[in-house]
Amino acid sequence: MRLTILGSSSATPIYDRHPSSQLLSVNDHLYLIDCGEGTLFRINDFKIKKNKIIAIFISHLHGDHFYGLIGLLTTMSMHERTETLTIVSPARLKDIIQLQCEISKTIIRFPINYVEFSQESKEIYTDSNATVTTIPLEHKIDTCGFLFSKKHADRKVIKSKIEEYKLTNSEIAELIKGNTVQNSEGKSIQMSDISEKNLDTKTFAYCSDTQFSKSYIPLISNIDLLYHESTFLQKDKNRAIDTKHSTASEAAEAARLANVKKLLIGHFSARYLDLEPLLEEAKLVFENTELALEGKTFLI
Amino acid sequence: MRLTILGSSSATPIYDRHPSSQLLSVNDHLYLIDCGEGTLFRINDFKIKKNKIIAIFISHLHGDHFYGLIGLLTTMSMHERTETLTIVSPARLKDIIQLQCEISKTIIRFPINYVEFSQESKEIYTDSNATVTTIPLEHKIDTCGFLFSKKHADRKVIKSKIEEYKLTNSEIAELIKGNTVQNSEGKSIQMSDISEKNLDTKTFAYCSDTQFSKSYIPLISNIDLLYHESTFLQKDKNRAIDTKHSTASEAAEAARLANVKKLLIGHFSARYLDLEPLLEEAKLVFENTELALEGKTFLI
Repeated sequence: MRLTILGSSSATPIYDRHPSSQLLSVNDHLYLIDCGEGTLFRINDFKIKKNKIIAIFISHLHGDHFYGLIGLLTTMSMHERTETLTIVSPARLKDIIQLQCEISKTIIRFPINYVEFSQESKEIYTDSNATVTTIPLEHKIDTCGFLFSKKHADRKVIKSKIEEYKLTNSEIAELIKGNTVQNSEGKSIQMSDISEKNLDTKTFAYCSDTQFSKSYIPLISNIDLLYHESTFLQKDKNRAIDTKHSTASEAAEAARLANVKKLLIGHFSARYLDLEPLLEEAKLVFENTELALEGKTFLI
Repeated sequence: MRLTILGSSSATPIYDRHPSSQLLSVNDHLYLIDCGEGTLFRINDFKIKKNKIIAIFISHLHGDHFYGLIGLLTTMSMHERTETLTIVSPARLKDIIQLQCEISKTIIRFPINYVEFSQESKEIYTDSNATVTTIPLEHKIDTCGFLFSKKHADRKVIKSKIEEYKLTNSEIAELIKGNTVQNSEGKSIQMSDISEKNLDTKTFAYCSDTQFSKSYIPLISNIDLLYHESTFLQKDKNRAIDTKHSTASEAAEAARLANVKKLLIGHFSARYLDLEPLLEEAKLVFENTELALEGKTFLI
């Protein structure tokens, strides 16, 4: 899995930081997470093939998380997308998209599969690459984060067994398909003979926007990468309480409690030109933290 | 009057060109014309004081002309605008804005005066600086351009008369206020003695989007500056017909027929990386033409 940050500003764009959006690539299948205004520009800037996006996940309906959606959809249509796009969001996003299309007499020429979630943890999306579960968060309006789990083959090949049985590449391919193969020594071999149960999985959780709460910690336990919003510094904690956002220190506390491997902090307030103090504050609580800087890609 | 180009791409952003938007400054009072996605970013880039915008004019409800509006309005509100904003547009833009606010539980904390126009030429807006008249255009949906006329004082002072009557600055100020003044020679003087009728006016028309038509030529005759869309080159004329847009040559023909002083062409198709051929084509018909390049300001 690869995560590219397209926007990590909070409510308003500033200092060349833009509203929330991220692109998650799982086995080269693309998923867009939130779609603030100008996401289309970032997609162009970073030369992302927008019509390869399979599904878009919108965490909540504050404008800085979805105002870029309608422009992206109409441009996908102009660029002759035909494949179905899944849009996962809270209720009524469809109403907004449809009203805009109706009034502007715009026809989106590909099917959209709208999937609406409510404020509960539930497997909301699955395909051959990934499964996505909602993470109920605590914000001013209904908001869910998303836990992405990369699917893996059930079994993985043991290298030493290939050497032991002197298997060719085409024989291995047959075994993976589920067929039985006779090797050069006449032995009948099956997939179970050369493989073990695949326990590898990769997990990424997106938690924005939310005030810090222990309620969602069990849903993000032991994951590989956590993106947690970190709108404010601890010194502006009162502002975080008023607006139901988190501080850098709280984001790090969530990472520590959930025992995640790595933390990314983002959704930075316009009041901070310099982001280093946010990073320093988080690192005091959880060392393996990085800033979600726009254009940066993180391997998971 | 000063016109700054914020975006001059047609339907989709490309080559660092952005959807339609322009800022017109009349005596330092700001008017925004169209508001494609990302207009807020351009306003930030060019350090424009967004809360000084008095009125926003939306020519039609295709997305590349208004998708940036909701983000601008919510940001104006967050930045504590209190003054009324006038929004001039075709019918039902208000429905879109209100639905988005309702679903996202967003309150815009300043009054909006929605003014809706229909497909006719009419004085639609006036304040102490400018008068705006709609220009019915010919596009796929109801669309009007806008003719901005800068208001001027009714009379202007004749310099030689000031010398003749030996008037001081404070005496001139009194005369302008409408008072009678006795000069150093005891003569009783009024404003009419030192001024003549002011025939100075400045006019700017915005014509986008439209196919070329003689129908709107009388409404833009003899103006100082015409912005006319020029989506295509003449060699792509069939595409212009299909999409109800104009070619560079047609934009220039409109300028020639209307006998305007200067032409700006914009709303460039994504198919042209190099804009010089559009300029060359227009100049063959109307010499005093310039490209509406983003960030450029034109004095009127």
